[in-house]
Amino acid sequence: MKKKRPLILISNDDGFAAKGINSLLEYVRGFGDIIACAPESARSGFSCAFSSEKPLRLRLVREEPGLQVWACNGTPVDCLKIAIDQICDRMPDIVISGINHGDNASVNSHYSGTMGVAREGCMKGIPSVAFSLCNYSPDADFSNTARLIKIITGRVLEDGLPKNVCLNVNFPDTPEIKGTKVCRMCNGIWEKELVKERHPRGYDYYWMVGQFRDTEPEATDTDEWALAHGYAAITPTTIDTTAYSAMQKISDWDL
Amino acid sequence: MKKKRPLILISNDDGFAAKGINSLLEYVRGFGDIIACAPESARSGFSCAFSSEKPLRLRLVREEPGLQVWACNGTPVDCLKIAIDQICDRMPDIVISGINHGDNASVNSHYSGTMGVAREGCMKGIPSVAFSLCNYSPDADFSNTARLIKIITGRVLEDGLPKNVCLNVNFPDTPEIKGTKVCRMCNGIWEKELVKERHPRGYDYYWMVGQFRDTEPEATDTDEWALAHGYAAITPTTIDTTAYSAMQKISDWDL
Repeated sequence: MKKKRPLILISNDDGFAAKGINSLLEYVRGFGDIIACAPESARSGFSCAFSSEKPLRLRLVREEPGLQVWACNGTPVDCLKIAIDQICDRMPDIVISGINHGDNASVNSHYSGTMGVAREGCMKGIPSVAFSLCNYSPDADFSNTARLIKIITGRVLEDGLPKNVCLNVNFPDTPEIKGTKVCRMCNGIWEKELVKERHPRGYDYYWMVGQFRDTEPEATDTDEWALAHGYAAITPTTIDTTAYSAMQKISDWDL
Repeated sequence: MKKKRPLILISNDDGFAAKGINSLLEYVRGFGDIIACAPESARSGFSCAFSSEKPLRLRLVREEPGLQVWACNGTPVDCLKIAIDQICDRMPDIVISGINHGDNASVNSHYSGTMGVAREGCMKGIPSVAFSLCNYSPDADFSNTARLIKIITGRVLEDGLPKNVCLNVNFPDTPEIKGTKVCRMCNGIWEKELVKERHPRGYDYYWMVGQFRDTEPEATDTDEWALAHGYAAITPTTIDTTAYSAMQKISDWDL
């Protein structure tokens, strides 16, 4: 029996029309059949959110041999769930998320819809990778990431990933990426997050803005360090968020 | 100088009017001054999502000596961010989330807005605890959780929690809770998640439903096991989601 071509499931949080996901489609088309299912419009900061109360809809927006692109009115995680459940004729061999317009390093990993997609794929037992570029512009140039995206996609298809582990890959926005660093998530904090404004009708409202601060700028093994020094940061990320090192202390409470 | 009373910041994902958060307020009022800031209405499954593009608003819905309750039109994480930035006059000594109507054990921890609140508090460096009861009913009876909620709140206020660690506490819905187990997050998977329906106007739409399956029912050290056997499950949960055990394998790729 002829082995089927790998099935590649793609999503993002910037929406199906974003330059990042369309660059990604182009870079990985050679690896197999592609189904992309992405939000109708931008869903940044959606984390692992899903829609429990809203009816979801799907729309096929592009179809070519070996490629389908669907738009969904839900969150990034909704897109992945509905694609696996309703669109794919077999389990995908890999889930790829991105390329995000903007980085998802450090604690941003928790807020990121791009990482929500990778976590969701991983929770379904599929090797999953998120790609992000440190450039928020809708017109960002992703071409310098193509070579590493192809290499990483090839390796993940060939080797798989450990159970419960997905990859958070962030690229520096530099003409020449120096190489890759396998690193840990940097400790960091968002500060001064809200700005109060006065509505013409006389009430207060607030915009979420904020400044990110790296709280361990001296560390050289973090994703923030790698990006600041021109390297692509590969952070293996676990679904099992049990804080094993804290279990003894809590057990000692003897509740 | 007189030491100030502890400041307790409370939120949830079921909305400020839910029975769970109002039960929680009652149970922990003795521990300090309370500010609650919770969504206007239910925001289940919102994970760590925040609102980057939507103007946020606040409304004071209840005020008594030592207690303020605010409603916010954003996500659970928005509620926490805006409360810390705009409402609290000092950093809270503890963040408490819940009591959620429904459990947040196993991988549900990732989707949970209740846990989003605890993660957000933890990312701000505040000892943070999420409480959930295995009962989805709006009329759930939370009274059996009161004793342990008070004990755990007292311990966290006294001892704090390790850096980057928050607590995911789930209670079984039983008349008598047998005790507590400090446990790890169970491996599990959601299956058959979408149901297709036909709209009267002739198009398809989908509801998110799904069945949760514990993929390691034999394990006795998990949150699912503890809950199934009548114990409160305390899962220390880390913000640092680096998969340290996978770093060598990925480094060996030698990209």
